[in-house]
Amino acid sequence: MENRSTCPISIALEVVGDKWSLLVIRDLLFTEKRTFSEFLASDEKISTNILTDRLVLLESEGIIRKRKDEHHRQKVIYTLTDKGLDLLPLILELGAWSGKHYKVPSWAKAHIRKLKGSGPDGLKAFRQQLRKAHQ
Amino acid sequence: MENRSTCPISIALEVVGDKWSLLVIRDLLFTEKRTFSEFLASDEKISTNILTDRLVLLESEGIIRKRKDEHHRQKVIYTLTDKGLDLLPLILELGAWSGKHYKVPSWAKAHIRKLKGSGPDGLKAFRQQLRKAHQ
Repeated sequence: MENRSTCPISIALEVVGDKWSLLVIRDLLFTEKRTFSEFLASDEKISTNILTDRLVLLESEGIIRKRKDEHHRQKVIYTLTDKGLDLLPLILELGAWSGKHYKVPSWAKAHIRKLKGSGPDGLKAFRQQLRKAHQ
Repeated sequence: MENRSTCPISIALEVVGDKWSLLVIRDLLFTEKRTFSEFLASDEKISTNILTDRLVLLESEGIIRKRKDEHHRQKVIYTLTDKGLDLLPLILELGAWSGKHYKVPSWAKAHIRKLKGSGPDGLKAFRQQLRKAHQ
């Protein structure tokens, strides 16, 4: 991919700057969803072709990895790489911003506030947990 | 706007989840650019129709405001509202993530690291400065 500029903000937007990619990352970070059909079933009703496209992009950028489920060999599951796990602070800032400026469920707001409020050590511990779950 | 779900992450992506809107916010946060033609001249070469569209969207969401320059009445300038200034932490996380995973100029990396490293008080002070400049 040739970048449109060397600005780090621009580069990040070229990779995850769309309305859908970070929703897959959200599902992987905060839910047990790991398969195509589970992502498809999320509230936002992503279409199959957009989901296919985004999974290919995220895998090619090394943000997610794809493998066969060890218990059900016909099932393909997706997990986050370390680079993908590094999107956690960004996702939290997205949620914190709209929690401040839009009407969102109070449980979601509380969840984000709690995670952000846990500070660098709390986030590190949460990331460790996630890392284990995504191995 | 009818939201596709109540998830705060999804809502934020519906507003700023595209490859261009946050570049305008970046220009407003980190440069002296305030006009249509100045945004147009940024390295990423946004097209006039996308820029027009994004400025309308950002204004309608209360993220930027538009007014006539007091010194040049024919000139229209854009500034950030408080809601727009609240995007600073998100922008820093975008930059930090690609600074970690992509090749970016070391000065840009150092700038983001310094701001993020300044902690809540440092960021608050920077935001205050910006707020004055955007009044």
